[in-house]
Amino acid sequence: MYKKKGLLIVLSGPSGVGKGTVRKALFEEPNTNYEYSISMTTRSPREGEQDGIDYFFKSKEEFESLIDAGRLLEHAEYVGNYYGTPMQYVEEMIEAGRDVFLEIEVEGAKQVREKMPEGLFIFLAPPSLSELENRLIGRGTEDADVIATRVARAREELEMMHLYDYVVENDDVQNACDRIHAIVTAEHCKRERVEELYKQMLRGE
Amino acid sequence: MYKKKGLLIVLSGPSGVGKGTVRKALFEEPNTNYEYSISMTTRSPREGEQDGIDYFFKSKEEFESLIDAGRLLEHAEYVGNYYGTPMQYVEEMIEAGRDVFLEIEVEGAKQVREKMPEGLFIFLAPPSLSELENRLIGRGTEDADVIATRVARAREELEMMHLYDYVVENDDVQNACDRIHAIVTAEHCKRERVEELYKQMLRGE
Repeated sequence: MYKKKGLLIVLSGPSGVGKGTVRKALFEEPNTNYEYSISMTTRSPREGEQDGIDYFFKSKEEFESLIDAGRLLEHAEYVGNYYGTPMQYVEEMIEAGRDVFLEIEVEGAKQVREKMPEGLFIFLAPPSLSELENRLIGRGTEDADVIATRVARAREELEMMHLYDYVVENDDVQNACDRIHAIVTAEHCKRERVEELYKQMLRGE
Repeated sequence: MYKKKGLLIVLSGPSGVGKGTVRKALFEEPNTNYEYSISMTTRSPREGEQDGIDYFFKSKEEFESLIDAGRLLEHAEYVGNYYGTPMQYVEEMIEAGRDVFLEIEVEGAKQVREKMPEGLFIFLAPPSLSELENRLIGRGTEDADVIATRVARAREELEMMHLYDYVVENDDVQNACDRIHAIVTAEHCKRERVEELYKQMLRGE
């Protein structure tokens, strides 16, 4: 029988933009049907944390051998401990037809893009585009420093977003969630994806 | 000031799939915010029909000179009269930032793709994919002729859908409308589109 694969959804963006808030809001919605990717870490479990639920807890040696084997989608070191995304869990979920959701920093997203370029990369942007628009409309009445700062920030964002497929402005958490759902729905309707299913079925797979 | 262009949304699909029903349902929703593209015809206005609202009514000579000038996105002849989509109206709406919606036959959609390849082409498909899946799961218990007919139809659809960006299965009118809205929302979030707005603003346009 034919296999309908899931999608890897990567949400990232500049620090402070509200990635965690949007992810939390998404997963609190009853109709959200994504698997949240479980991270792997070498730090010790805290009170009540369970292996395979909160984190995959590994020794430093185990973690490093996974890095060497290329089995981490992304990883980073933070205050002496490793944190990362194991590839196996993501691959298994996708093969099982589940959409997997990853919320990570910009640096991590870059690493994921290299390993799984077919993922769906969503850049969460501060509402600077609409802000910038308003500021520039008011040109002349606006302090030159304020404009310069905003233009500089827009330039930085523009450079960062280049690796992404979609840009969602975090003007409002609910709006951002709705747009992310719409993007995932649309991606499932992409002709290439549906065509592949037809082909698989016609081959009798 | 920078310009946010609208999208051209083309809904098409095999005859009898329910394009008209889906289009009608879409435009009955209060939150639908698309311009419906007005067709041009050489047939006489019927009682109560208004020029520029129901149709653009033109003489045969006027229509043919527009064809010659390449000013129709698509056209066809039907029982001695021309029917078509004037390019000017669509272009003006898109420039004004409005999304324009077109519901047309597969032949017309092919012509539109040639003139405006940047449009958003959505193929409305009969729910044959899920049907086919169910039938094939029951292989052996199913009549061979029934399977052969379904496979042949799937092959035909597969060939038709090749020109399209998205495939929406018309399993249910409301589902189909929701997916079309999601596709339009997602397209507005495409990185290339947002990036272009940032660039325009940074250039001070």
